[in-house]
Amino acid sequence: MDIGVLYSGGKDSTLAALFLERFGTVTLLCCTFGVTDDYRHAEDAALEVGFPARRVDLDPDVAREAAEQIVEDGFPRNGIQTVHEHALERAAELEYDAIADGTRRDDRVPTVPRSLAQSIEDRYDVAHLAPLAGFGRSAIDELVAKLLTTETGPSPEIQKGDYEAELRALIAEAHGSEMVEQSFPEHTQSRVTGRR
Amino acid sequence: MDIGVLYSGGKDSTLAALFLERFGTVTLLCCTFGVTDDYRHAEDAALEVGFPARRVDLDPDVAREAAEQIVEDGFPRNGIQTVHEHALERAAELEYDAIADGTRRDDRVPTVPRSLAQSIEDRYDVAHLAPLAGFGRSAIDELVAKLLTTETGPSPEIQKGDYEAELRALIAEAHGSEMVEQSFPEHTQSRVTGRR
Repeated sequence: MDIGVLYSGGKDSTLAALFLERFGTVTLLCCTFGVTDDYRHAEDAALEVGFPARRVDLDPDVAREAAEQIVEDGFPRNGIQTVHEHALERAAELEYDAIADGTRRDDRVPTVPRSLAQSIEDRYDVAHLAPLAGFGRSAIDELVAKLLTTETGPSPEIQKGDYEAELRALIAEAHGSEMVEQSFPEHTQSRVTGRR
Repeated sequence: MDIGVLYSGGKDSTLAALFLERFGTVTLLCCTFGVTDDYRHAEDAALEVGFPARRVDLDPDVAREAAEQIVEDGFPRNGIQTVHEHALERAAELEYDAIADGTRRDDRVPTVPRSLAQSIEDRYDVAHLAPLAGFGRSAIDELVAKLLTTETGPSPEIQKGDYEAELRALIAEAHGSEMVEQSFPEHTQSRVTGRR
């Protein structure tokens, strides 16, 4: 089974890839809107954990709409969800037997409800796999500590290849950096630096 | 991480155990109400796939209540759910760091909604893991075909160690075997006979 995993270089998507590696051939999909080069941080992390990486180009119009949504809402949840669904659709169009992501049981965003997973499966004839969907926060923390080395810090300082960096850049460009601070509450992020 | 997996000898709980084996020490929990010896089929399957098995005694009163519920409903769903929740609680009382089961994304019964998983985690200081919660039917079939040998047939003929055999026996004892046929629609079951 050829599996493409949506990959940010963070703990969750890396752990998802580790779960899947014995069940198929895993490729890490590093998505970019072409706004910044931050997807390269995901590519670097992929190299560090030993999986092949592939750049996947997303539609910059979706990023711009998501950025405006975030500014309008004053919080990133809906914009991030929009972008994740778009990334899933793009990945589903590729030649993999299954596409996967690192969404967790306790995540508020992004989420992949069963209806969305089944809709993607039906429309693209591909399986959707969420290996962490049945794992809570503390179990994931324990598995990450056992299997991976990570670097943790405030979100703007940790160089990850997730959607946030590009959405921040778009909001800064259109509305100034103060609007970024207002719309994205600062939170702790982590980046994977290797396997233990 | 010491992980106890609720185990029937079927495909789903076996695949769940395979998912978890690289993340911790897995013990397969073969539950019984003491009504029949069918849990031994789960023990046999555990031996065949190479995991240690442990008998877990469940409360026969719960089985009797579930059997009556099934007769009253005319279908097994609610009774099976009651029994699964009881088994989870019993397993959670044991000394494992995590308890797991083979519930799948597309299962109608038993299910472990997030609220139930979190409630068990909070009350027993144990993680609940559902490694197949993010996998649909076709992906699971493909992984099972790749990793396991199985035997498939109508439910009463496949010797498994799940709750069904004991509930059937209780219903037959109290209401006759015709009531069993009425309450449990015949369906295809499968039993794991080894690893590929």
